[in-house]
Amino acid sequence: MHTAPSIEAASYQPPTWEAILAAHARIAPRIHRTPILTSISLNAMSGAQLFFKCENLQKTGSFKIRGASNAILSLTESEAARGIVTQSSGNHGAAVACAAAWRGVPAWIVMPNNASAVKAKAIEGYGGKIVFCDPTVTARKATCDRLQAETGAHLVHPYDDDRIIAGQATAAKELLEEIGDLDAVFAPVSGGGLLSGTCLGAKGIRAEVHVFGCEPARADDAYRSLASGTLQSQDSSDTIADGLRASLAPRTFAILRRHVDRILLVTEEEIISAARLVWERMKIIIEPSSAVAIAPLLNPGAVASLNLPKRPDGTAPRLGVIFSGGNVDLSALPWK
Amino acid sequence: MHTAPSIEAASYQPPTWEAILAAHARIAPRIHRTPILTSISLNAMSGAQLFFKCENLQKTGSFKIRGASNAILSLTESEAARGIVTQSSGNHGAAVACAAAWRGVPAWIVMPNNASAVKAKAIEGYGGKIVFCDPTVTARKATCDRLQAETGAHLVHPYDDDRIIAGQATAAKELLEEIGDLDAVFAPVSGGGLLSGTCLGAKGIRAEVHVFGCEPARADDAYRSLASGTLQSQDSSDTIADGLRASLAPRTFAILRRHVDRILLVTEEEIISAARLVWERMKIIIEPSSAVAIAPLLNPGAVASLNLPKRPDGTAPRLGVIFSGGNVDLSALPWK
Repeated sequence: MHTAPSIEAASYQPPTWEAILAAHARIAPRIHRTPILTSISLNAMSGAQLFFKCENLQKTGSFKIRGASNAILSLTESEAARGIVTQSSGNHGAAVACAAAWRGVPAWIVMPNNASAVKAKAIEGYGGKIVFCDPTVTARKATCDRLQAETGAHLVHPYDDDRIIAGQATAAKELLEEIGDLDAVFAPVSGGGLLSGTCLGAKGIRAEVHVFGCEPARADDAYRSLASGTLQSQDSSDTIADGLRASLAPRTFAILRRHVDRILLVTEEEIISAARLVWERMKIIIEPSSAVAIAPLLNPGAVASLNLPKRPDGTAPRLGVIFSGGNVDLSALPWK
Repeated sequence: MHTAPSIEAASYQPPTWEAILAAHARIAPRIHRTPILTSISLNAMSGAQLFFKCENLQKTGSFKIRGASNAILSLTESEAARGIVTQSSGNHGAAVACAAAWRGVPAWIVMPNNASAVKAKAIEGYGGKIVFCDPTVTARKATCDRLQAETGAHLVHPYDDDRIIAGQATAAKELLEEIGDLDAVFAPVSGGGLLSGTCLGAKGIRAEVHVFGCEPARADDAYRSLASGTLQSQDSSDTIADGLRASLAPRTFAILRRHVDRILLVTEEEIISAARLVWERMKIIIEPSSAVAIAPLLNPGAVASLNLPKRPDGTAPRLGVIFSGGNVDLSALPWK
């Protein structure tokens, strides 16, 4: 997006551990400390000990409330007074609308006019004012700019924002606080707010933990960006994982270059199959974007191919998986 | 069913608190301590503070593993040696198969030949041997009798059994251990094992807590039994809540007569609507039988009509709801 201050990647300082602690203290009274679930059958399929951090059970149905509420609750009175503006086609919009309501200020959510009716309804349910625009980067920017000019509202970018990244870091922080000896953590990657935060939150507690980003092959800009060392854009992003169609931004790219071990790509079929498996076996509703984080672990040999260091006690690897959200249209499931 | 020792209702002594403590100690290393979830939107709809004990997230996908594992793990070596037999069209069968596998002995599950393919597959997944029979009480009894005679297997009745009732009591015990000041607890009722256990488990921790049974109007034998004071049978049980088609038995009827406050009836439409609401808002999969326990609380004025004592602090009533299971066929959802 457009108005986040540009950064110099080499000298960029990501949110500090102190900033993450402050974010957690700020948002903890408002959000759920989500449960960490396990599944014997998914353990058996993966050959690992899996620990699922269930942000699908978070308020607003996704982790996005962590970053949005950290950003909005940390504003000064005068910064917040004229409301919040953001652009989102889904979960970030609902989170901003919810956190703005907590703060008692209006929220304008710029949405592409092809966004899902279910997600628009959720945003309205939290009191957000939706402003539709054409589904192009140019139209979104112009609409956000116009709204800022008209209302004086404060912009909260979905991910290229240190307050957002620090908030998203609290999910992995909670995971590592409860399951301290994880060998690796897996999170989906889109704009990179969650994955950047996962790196900072997990490694802040256990420096040696590995962090993997999981991405649809059909929206593989993070994979290409890290492979090439240059921020790549996403031209087409025709994936069922509708939360993962955005591209990395300067801040998230800088953090991932330093901290992420690898990006794992998955096919559409693997995403749908993993989502259904989790619904059936774990009895929780995850959206396809969440399934992207477990899909790479379900094929035989997949965990072994990660080449994680052997555990001293000889047991199977202990892996954390962040289920990012659970917002789906129950009238249009991705399987027949 | 047929071979549980008959009881004299007036002199029947339900499982003691010590038996429930022993059951909990026996099964706790094997089962999940399931999370207790909350939902701001369901609180708003009900005008109460709701606490959901999520046995849909329990091993085997329902609370049934609590009773089945207590019964099977408490057998002597010689009692267990020749395996277990039971009859079930669903969750109890899966639980017995799972607990028998833990014990290392075979399990024969007598199922009606019109049972769902999904539930049969789950039982086979746990290693249970399915024996189909005609869907009549007579055929089930004859098949169980024959299997017992042929194999020497030990019968574990789905609910008319003190070991089962003591095991089911541990769900409400956990709920009250964590949320100590509940005003009332709501559980679905079918054969009455869960509801009996809920009475004992909840009132064992907080004597003044109210306990309500929730039942489909289309399978209202518990309602009729408690209203008439005589154990009533269920001739037709054409409800979408496929786990609630059984009828009370002597033990469960005796416990409910002493301890349950009231049975609340719900329509099929209320069940389906409540199930969908929970899927959408809470992002968890509950089966229709679970939805029966929340459906009576969602209509305006419903909670007020329960005439619960006012809380000293003037806050909204604090109500526990037991979500009994989450086993559904994802290819055949109850809504369009």
